[in-house]
Amino acid sequence: MFRTPIKHCRNCGTAVVYRIPDDGDTKERAVCPACATIHYENPLVVVGTVPVLDERVLLCKRNIEPRWGKWTLPAGFMELGESTAQGAARETDEEAGAAYEMGGLFSVMSVVRVGQVHMFYRAQLLHDRFAPGHETIEARLFTEDEIPWDEIAFRTVGETLRRFFADRKAGAFQVHHLDIV
Amino acid sequence: MFRTPIKHCRNCGTAVVYRIPDDGDTKERAVCPACATIHYENPLVVVGTVPVLDERVLLCKRNIEPRWGKWTLPAGFMELGESTAQGAARETDEEAGAAYEMGGLFSVMSVVRVGQVHMFYRAQLLHDRFAPGHETIEARLFTEDEIPWDEIAFRTVGETLRRFFADRKAGAFQVHHLDIV
Repeated sequence: MFRTPIKHCRNCGTAVVYRIPDDGDTKERAVCPACATIHYENPLVVVGTVPVLDERVLLCKRNIEPRWGKWTLPAGFMELGESTAQGAARETDEEAGAAYEMGGLFSVMSVVRVGQVHMFYRAQLLHDRFAPGHETIEARLFTEDEIPWDEIAFRTVGETLRRFFADRKAGAFQVHHLDIV
Repeated sequence: MFRTPIKHCRNCGTAVVYRIPDDGDTKERAVCPACATIHYENPLVVVGTVPVLDERVLLCKRNIEPRWGKWTLPAGFMELGESTAQGAARETDEEAGAAYEMGGLFSVMSVVRVGQVHMFYRAQLLHDRFAPGHETIEARLFTEDEIPWDEIAFRTVGETLRRFFADRKAGAFQVHHLDIV
């Protein structure tokens, strides 16, 4: 449903079977019939920023699938060994090569269909010179009126941008929490 | 460092090698020399609630390792196919068998050392009858003065409880965001 199914045990390489484990669990897992390893699959965390310079927001044109050529906020999968804010900062470095100061947590969104939790932080850009990495065709600043709403790569990016501009008009930033099903 | 290392490919069972993939990645991953599958390992999301009845908060005494016999808020690993709030509600059902109404997002904490993100929601208990599952020895209500601070299972639970009582005194609940390193 979400990802390529587990076929072999990560511990010993034996072909797994899908069944409810005997430990009181209620969900089917990939269980190894040889070494009894139970393989869990859980949602992934995607972290990113809303980088802002004066009236404009930084978007990156994707040079990778999915959604090649569409516009996104800098974001990617959180890694082991970092906090959500550190991951968001790393992705902003990698995808935009921007100079910025991290701001507060802004949006937390479950994307149930794909098994992901997306979190965006506000970030204050220090200047308008960018050095995008290989995953980005172009990094560019947009005013609210210039945002290419029909060319936004992911629904969580659109929802985050809409709430960002609304909060800015209202003069106060909230933490936004929503589920996308 | 965080979990049992991946030894075999989930797709074909071949022994993996750890190296930086050729796709522009910068981190070592378990790569299959036979079918080229790259195995990513990422942080897990733990979701739970702060269940409240009048002046008291519900804690569960753990019947499982780690921290057997210590007190925790109802919480557990988020599963595929649910939102963070749905996962928090499910864990509250499973661990406490409580009747409640879900409230707002309350705390978001990265626990970098173990590769986890913990999120707690406020929840309003409807009565004081509980039916804890097999992972819980006992579910009990505590006033702030009664909380067994030295017997709390996880640091994120203590941090969440402290902030909950502080916000309640202040008369307004915030979304709290912190990193635990």
